[in-house]
Amino acid sequence: VTPLHRVGIEVVGLDADDTLWHSERDFAEVQHRYRALLAHYGAPDLIESVLLATERRNLIVFGYGVKGFMLSMIETAIEISGQRITGAEIHQIVELGRSLIERPLELLPGVHAAVEALSADYRVVLITKGDLIHQETKIAASGLGELFWRVEVVSEKNPTTYRRLLERLAVDPARFVMVGNSLQSDILPVLDIGGRAVHVPYEITWALDHGIAEAHHSYAVLESLADLQALLGTW
Amino acid sequence: VTPLHRVGIEVVGLDADDTLWHSERDFAEVQHRYRALLAHYGAPDLIESVLLATERRNLIVFGYGVKGFMLSMIETAIEISGQRITGAEIHQIVELGRSLIERPLELLPGVHAAVEALSADYRVVLITKGDLIHQETKIAASGLGELFWRVEVVSEKNPTTYRRLLERLAVDPARFVMVGNSLQSDILPVLDIGGRAVHVPYEITWALDHGIAEAHHSYAVLESLADLQALLGTW
Repeated sequence: VTPLHRVGIEVVGLDADDTLWHSERDFAEVQHRYRALLAHYGAPDLIESVLLATERRNLIVFGYGVKGFMLSMIETAIEISGQRITGAEIHQIVELGRSLIERPLELLPGVHAAVEALSADYRVVLITKGDLIHQETKIAASGLGELFWRVEVVSEKNPTTYRRLLERLAVDPARFVMVGNSLQSDILPVLDIGGRAVHVPYEITWALDHGIAEAHHSYAVLESLADLQALLGTW
Repeated sequence: VTPLHRVGIEVVGLDADDTLWHSERDFAEVQHRYRALLAHYGAPDLIESVLLATERRNLIVFGYGVKGFMLSMIETAIEISGQRITGAEIHQIVELGRSLIERPLELLPGVHAAVEALSADYRVVLITKGDLIHQETKIAASGLGELFWRVEVVSEKNPTTYRRLLERLAVDPARFVMVGNSLQSDILPVLDIGGRAVHVPYEITWALDHGIAEAHHSYAVLESLADLQALLGTW
């Protein structure tokens, strides 16, 4: 008996933030506290929209991750306050950002067992965006590090980066499935290059991932990573 | 006739900042302007030493690169001023940091020809620390991207990271030479794992690289990357 995966998928790509462990929940909480801190300078809605515009503008220079987010919070505070923001308040903003880095990692339910099982049958690659050192710290804290064949921290997840990555790993896109919570980053670009994809939505969608057209693509959707192994077994 | 490198070095690792292009010179200039901006809060020497201590403390959470440096400048300003720093001054600090990212890249003399020649005879790997997106932007701006077999952005350059990197690339350390300006990052860890190393000093040494013992190790020292090909030919 040849398991189905032997003639199908060989390599499983896993997203990290909000696929293996909580992340956006913590960002949302920090932003809530940030809006409260700046409440005497502007309404929560205004702060939220200026912060989002700042993050979007800064992505190309700062990339993804906590450090860029901290700098965007600082720039937004300066703008919202008309430069009246105080040193003490900036200090609190820096501490809010640091709390994101220093917070203990919390795996999503069933993740450890799911990744362990997958790694027995497939080569599993962690593919993530964000600050290099912060991602490495989280991987170490996750206890999952030894289960990955490769860990790839990339600056952007688009068809070009996936194509180059698979070429470098000598993996045929047809033998590759990407699993993650972001349609924009984990699903659509992989379908574009002829790979397969499994969407495992997280409880919150990051604002910059809103409004992504699902178009005509076909991909699987799972409620939990714990169901992935069984799904791949049917391919 | 078998060229000597065929029986010796197969893979050349090149550091990026201050080996291929100017970097520390720009950081030094920004720090000069930063100390001038904060002059009414403290003496230049004090600002310099507090900034250095902040950078050192933050390395483990922020890693290397401009974004962490910007955050360290902001934290230092808050500390030096006793939180009296103004929003307008924080804004100027952010702009100083951004100027490092937006400044046009300037290759060191002879680098383009040297890398081009090396890439004809060896597999050349760029191995650099720093912010992922900023390093990728600089590589793109350098015009050297196509000459590299691999580009590796790592969070730290120590014996463990070099050993893992070479294992992953299936490169024997004995066939590997690392070339760079930092004894701490480019030379000593590579000698530790049985590789070879060529030190090409830069005009300025980063403060956190000062005081590294040269110990009993043996490695080559070159004034310019332009001399590397000839040296390797003699090995």
